[in-house]
Amino acid sequence: MKTINTRRSIRKYAKKEVGEELLNKLLSEAARTQTMGNLQLYSVVVTRSDEMKARLAPAHFNQPMVTEAPVVLTICADYNRTSIWCRNRKAEPGYDNMLSFINAATDALLYTQTFCNLAEEEGLGLCFLGTTVYMPQMIIDTLQLPELVMPVATITLGWPAEEPALSDRLPEESFIHSEKYSNYSAADIDKYYSPKEALPENQEFVRINNKETLAQIFTDIRYTKKDCEAMSEGFIEALKRQKFM
Amino acid sequence: MKTINTRRSIRKYAKKEVGEELLNKLLSEAARTQTMGNLQLYSVVVTRSDEMKARLAPAHFNQPMVTEAPVVLTICADYNRTSIWCRNRKAEPGYDNMLSFINAATDALLYTQTFCNLAEEEGLGLCFLGTTVYMPQMIIDTLQLPELVMPVATITLGWPAEEPALSDRLPEESFIHSEKYSNYSAADIDKYYSPKEALPENQEFVRINNKETLAQIFTDIRYTKKDCEAMSEGFIEALKRQKFM
Repeated sequence: MKTINTRRSIRKYAKKEVGEELLNKLLSEAARTQTMGNLQLYSVVVTRSDEMKARLAPAHFNQPMVTEAPVVLTICADYNRTSIWCRNRKAEPGYDNMLSFINAATDALLYTQTFCNLAEEEGLGLCFLGTTVYMPQMIIDTLQLPELVMPVATITLGWPAEEPALSDRLPEESFIHSEKYSNYSAADIDKYYSPKEALPENQEFVRINNKETLAQIFTDIRYTKKDCEAMSEGFIEALKRQKFM
Repeated sequence: MKTINTRRSIRKYAKKEVGEELLNKLLSEAARTQTMGNLQLYSVVVTRSDEMKARLAPAHFNQPMVTEAPVVLTICADYNRTSIWCRNRKAEPGYDNMLSFINAATDALLYTQTFCNLAEEEGLGLCFLGTTVYMPQMIIDTLQLPELVMPVATITLGWPAEEPALSDRLPEESFIHSEKYSNYSAADIDKYYSPKEALPENQEFVRINNKETLAQIFTDIRYTKKDCEAMSEGFIEALKRQKFM
């Protein structure tokens, strides 16, 4: 997995199909990932049609990757299939609750990441859309997801038509704790975040947005308290409609 | 990543250390995984001391891997570090809500799975403990996790001292849907689950537990409605105490 050290999210794709055989091979191999009780609590909806991409796009703030990528994958936490199996086998499932959602979401996300690792090793480029959990009801309606199925990840996938710069990362000591969690002093924060704040592109980003600090870009523009709270409500509402709460 | 097709969870470890340099290299490389807004909303607590392993074990139903593995990793959804950074930079964080937990948990789980894939490629063996979210408050107390930090995954890690059989998986057509979610007919369920139900080890498991079907092993013994509901309450309670709800 040598590709890990040079990976970057890819948002522009060549006009070249991702073959069905290759895609199915990768989706199948990814299923070797560990899974709770070997239940495989996930499903993948593969979107190739222009019509369905256009219908999914608004849920992802119309980011152009959704309509431009040859393939869009929506990965879902899925207790529906397991529950039907149980009911068809004289067993009464009790998975309409929060813990079961967390278990299925965990399965789905671990599966997703192995898929990403495998796809990138194959030379494919992809972008993980965090927007999946922002307005999940739109995705649920579009993909006709039944109760006990909840979208948790979207991948836009294709052959890369760009090679963006590697993005920075925090130093490992900032996120690794030994034996117990050590909370962060002001000096720690300065040490860990100063290199990121000093990057020319981040300084430019602060300037053109008329902000004082890079952190304000996140709190005032990208992920505001108001948006997070409104989308938390929508997410919980969707969890309830899908019968996970 | 050729190891993916032969991977199995490893629960028995050789009496041989996992070097700190190797571990840090893998933990650092895994951070190349995509992350929301490049914020890296996770932390890893590394447990090597026997005392701390013994204190973590009850939260994992005293599964022997926790005390026997040379290393235990607890991976946490972490909005604490980002929030301190914001407050130290004249920015008011608004991440004490459900959506922010889901965002951070997603970051943490994707990071975890890249780590797993890298570690297995290195020849290490590991077991992912789903128990992490069953009684999270015990883990929070033991590792002294502050508000806005929530454990979402635990990995026991070491050099393999066993080579268990590969576990079965459902056929890919059972979890891949084209364009829209197709719900499952009784015939679909029979086709997808019969091979699993026919495995001698599963038939034996049903017999010794005096059950009629394999599904009943899950609903009546392994993941009962009563347990799932009680642990859902504990999980939500912990989310509230950690200020994510």
